[in-house]
Amino acid sequence: MAGIRLSAQPAHVRYEDRDDLVVIELAEGSRCAAVFTQNAFCAAPVIVAKEHLLKKSPRYFLINSGNANAGTGAPGLKDARRSCEALAQRTGCDPSQVLPFSTGVIGERLPVERIEEVLNASLATLSADNWSAAANAIMTTDTVAKGVSKTLEVGGKRITLTGMAKGSGMIRPDMATMLAYIATDADVEDDALQDCLQQAVDQSFNRITVDGDTSTNDACVLVATGASDAPCMDSRHADYPIFCSAVSEVCTRLAQLIIRDGEGATKFVTVCIEGGRDSSECLQVAYTVAHSPLVKTALFASDPNWGRILATVGRAGLPQLDIDRVELWLDDVCIVRDGGVASDYREADGQRIMDQEEILIRIVLGRGDASETLWTSDLSHDYVSINADYRS
Amino acid sequence: MAGIRLSAQPAHVRYEDRDDLVVIELAEGSRCAAVFTQNAFCAAPVIVAKEHLLKKSPRYFLINSGNANAGTGAPGLKDARRSCEALAQRTGCDPSQVLPFSTGVIGERLPVERIEEVLNASLATLSADNWSAAANAIMTTDTVAKGVSKTLEVGGKRITLTGMAKGSGMIRPDMATMLAYIATDADVEDDALQDCLQQAVDQSFNRITVDGDTSTNDACVLVATGASDAPCMDSRHADYPIFCSAVSEVCTRLAQLIIRDGEGATKFVTVCIEGGRDSSECLQVAYTVAHSPLVKTALFASDPNWGRILATVGRAGLPQLDIDRVELWLDDVCIVRDGGVASDYREADGQRIMDQEEILIRIVLGRGDASETLWTSDLSHDYVSINADYRS
Repeated sequence: MAGIRLSAQPAHVRYEDRDDLVVIELAEGSRCAAVFTQNAFCAAPVIVAKEHLLKKSPRYFLINSGNANAGTGAPGLKDARRSCEALAQRTGCDPSQVLPFSTGVIGERLPVERIEEVLNASLATLSADNWSAAANAIMTTDTVAKGVSKTLEVGGKRITLTGMAKGSGMIRPDMATMLAYIATDADVEDDALQDCLQQAVDQSFNRITVDGDTSTNDACVLVATGASDAPCMDSRHADYPIFCSAVSEVCTRLAQLIIRDGEGATKFVTVCIEGGRDSSECLQVAYTVAHSPLVKTALFASDPNWGRILATVGRAGLPQLDIDRVELWLDDVCIVRDGGVASDYREADGQRIMDQEEILIRIVLGRGDASETLWTSDLSHDYVSINADYRS
Repeated sequence: MAGIRLSAQPAHVRYEDRDDLVVIELAEGSRCAAVFTQNAFCAAPVIVAKEHLLKKSPRYFLINSGNANAGTGAPGLKDARRSCEALAQRTGCDPSQVLPFSTGVIGERLPVERIEEVLNASLATLSADNWSAAANAIMTTDTVAKGVSKTLEVGGKRITLTGMAKGSGMIRPDMATMLAYIATDADVEDDALQDCLQQAVDQSFNRITVDGDTSTNDACVLVATGASDAPCMDSRHADYPIFCSAVSEVCTRLAQLIIRDGEGATKFVTVCIEGGRDSSECLQVAYTVAHSPLVKTALFASDPNWGRILATVGRAGLPQLDIDRVELWLDDVCIVRDGGVASDYREADGQRIMDQEEILIRIVLGRGDASETLWTSDLSHDYVSINADYRS
C-alpha cells in the first residue's frame, strides 16, 4: 500500500516471546478519520489520540498490546503523552502528530520505558510489507491475525484498501471496535473520509457482539495517504459511493473475522430481525437474542432449544408485540408461526441446522418494514476458561 | 399454617424418579394476590391463572415442574384449561377456582393425561405438613429446595408467614420470579394484599439476576387464608406496615436463596450503587455490572480484575458521568477514586475480598442521593454445562 510503512517489535509490555509494539508511518499529507469507544471510562490513549487528531496532521500510530492504559487516571495520561513524545523526538515530528493506541489489561501502568527502548528498532524496520506482522502484534486473546485487502478503480485509477483488526472478547462495539486500522492510497477530503468511515462502522463493527461488553479502548481509524494516482474525492465525486461501499465491505469482513475468533466461539451466528416498526426496535430484539446466555449456551450445545430464543424476543421490551404474528426461523426451517410451533416443524430439521458451524436465526416481527442484521458467537466452556484465567 | 394443605406426587411430566406435581388447597374465603412475568411470550398457565384470578375465589393451585407449557400456542392454552377442569371435577369447585402453574422446558406439549392420572392421589395426600415436599417437587435445575417461615403479631394475635420458591437459571425477574408461593393465616383485604406483595417483590425478586433471562412462566403468589384469630387488615391498619415488612423479609430471603442456588453459582454477590441521581440510573448501572460476562467470569476466578467492573460502569449509558467522582469498593477496600487506582490500594487486599464466597461490589457515582442494591451470582463452567446439557 503506497504511503504506509509498518513495523512490529517485542517491547515486552506484557508478553515474553512475541511482538507487541507496532509503529505505523503515514506519508506526509495523509488524511485520517477515526471513531472511538463511547465508554465513559475511555482509556488514556483514546483521550490523547482524539486530542492529537484535532491537529489534522498525523504521521505515526504507536500501538501496544498487553496493556490498555485504561483506568489509570492522570498518571496514565502522562504515560500516553510521554510515549508520543519519545517517538516524536526520534522522528523529528511534533508529539501531536503521533496517535497512541493500547489494548490489553485494564488498570495497570503502561511500562513506557520498555516501549522507548525498542523505538529505534521499530523505526529501522518500517516497511510496506509488514501488515501481517503488525496484525499479529496487536492481538491479545485473539487466536488469528485479521487482515483484509481489496482493490478498486476510482476516477479511472486503481486504488487499494487494506485493513487489520484485533478483537475477541469485551466485544460489543459502540461506534467503534477494539482496534481496527484501514488504509487506502486514495485521496479523500476530510469530511467525506469521516462520513464514509462512520457509515461503514455503523453497519459492521457496530453490528457485532461477543459478550455485550464495550471496551474502554475501542478505536477504528481510516487513513487515506493520497499516494495513488487517483484524483481527490469529496462526497459529491461520482466514485465516492463505490469507495464507501468498498470501505464498508472491508469493515464488515474484519468485523466478521472478529466474531469468528470470538473468545471460545464454536459457532458463527447471524441474527436477522425482519418486519420491525423501525431499525431501533429490530436492534433491540437482535441484541437481546445475541446477549442471552441461555441462547448462547444452547448454540454451543447445538441444541435446537428454540423456546429460549422465543423467551428473549418476549422480554426484549417491544410495546404491543402481537406474538401471534411472530415467526422464528433457523436458516430455511420455520419453527414458530401463529404463536406456537409450526405444524410442519420436525425437531430433526432444527437439529440439522444447529449442527452447522454457521447458523442464521431469523425472526419476523410482522409489524413493519424495518430489518437489521448482526453477528455473534456462542458461549462455551472456553469463553469461561479464557476469561477466568486471563490475568493469571 | 392454618388454612393451607399441600401434596406432592410423581406425575412423570418429565422426570422419572421424583415428585413433579404439587396441589395446594386454600381454605374457603382465602384471598390471593399475584404478580406475573412481563415476558410477551408468557406461558399458557400464566394466561389462564390471570383469567381465573379475576373471579377472586381461588381454592387450588396446580403446579407442575419439567414442562413450562410455554410457546405452545392455542393447544397449550387448551391443555392448561383441561388440567384445571380435571381438578375442579374431582373437588366439586368451578374450574376458575383452580390456578395452573408450570415450569420447565419451553415449547413442548404438556402431558395432561399423566397429570390427571395422579390427581386422586394428590387430593388424598393433602396435608398442612407438606411444604418441604412441595418445595422439592417444584424444582427444575435447582439443587436445593427453598423455603422460609416466620411468625409475627398482628392486632395482638400471632400469625405465620410461610413461603417457598424455585428458580436457578433464566433468572432476571421482571415483576415476579420463576415461581414463588407465600401464604399467611392473616386476614388481609384484597387491595392491601396486592400492594403489599407488589412492594415486597419490587425489592426482592425484582432485584436479583442470574443470567438476565426473564422467564416466560414467572409467578409469585401471596395467599391470606384468614384462618388465624388476627383481625382483618386493610392498608390503614396500624399493623399493616409490620405485616408488609415481614412479607418483604420473606420474599428477600427467598430471592437470595435463588441466587445462592443460581445455576453453577460459586459466589453470592451484592451489587450496591450509591450516589446516583435516581433509582432508575442506579439500577441501570447495577444490572450492567451484574450481567457482564467479563465481571462474572472474574468473580468465578476470584480475580480482582476491577478494570472490568469499571468498564461496565462506563458503558452503562449514564449521561454526563464524571468519572473523576466515581468510587469502586470491594467490601471495605477502596480500589478506584479520582478517576484512577486509589493510592493506598494493594492487589492483596482486592484478592482477599475476591477469595470470599460472599462479595459486595459497591460503586459510588457521586452525583446524587439515590441508591439501589441487587444480588447476583458468577458465571462458571457449571453454568455452561447445565445449560448446554439441559434438554439432553
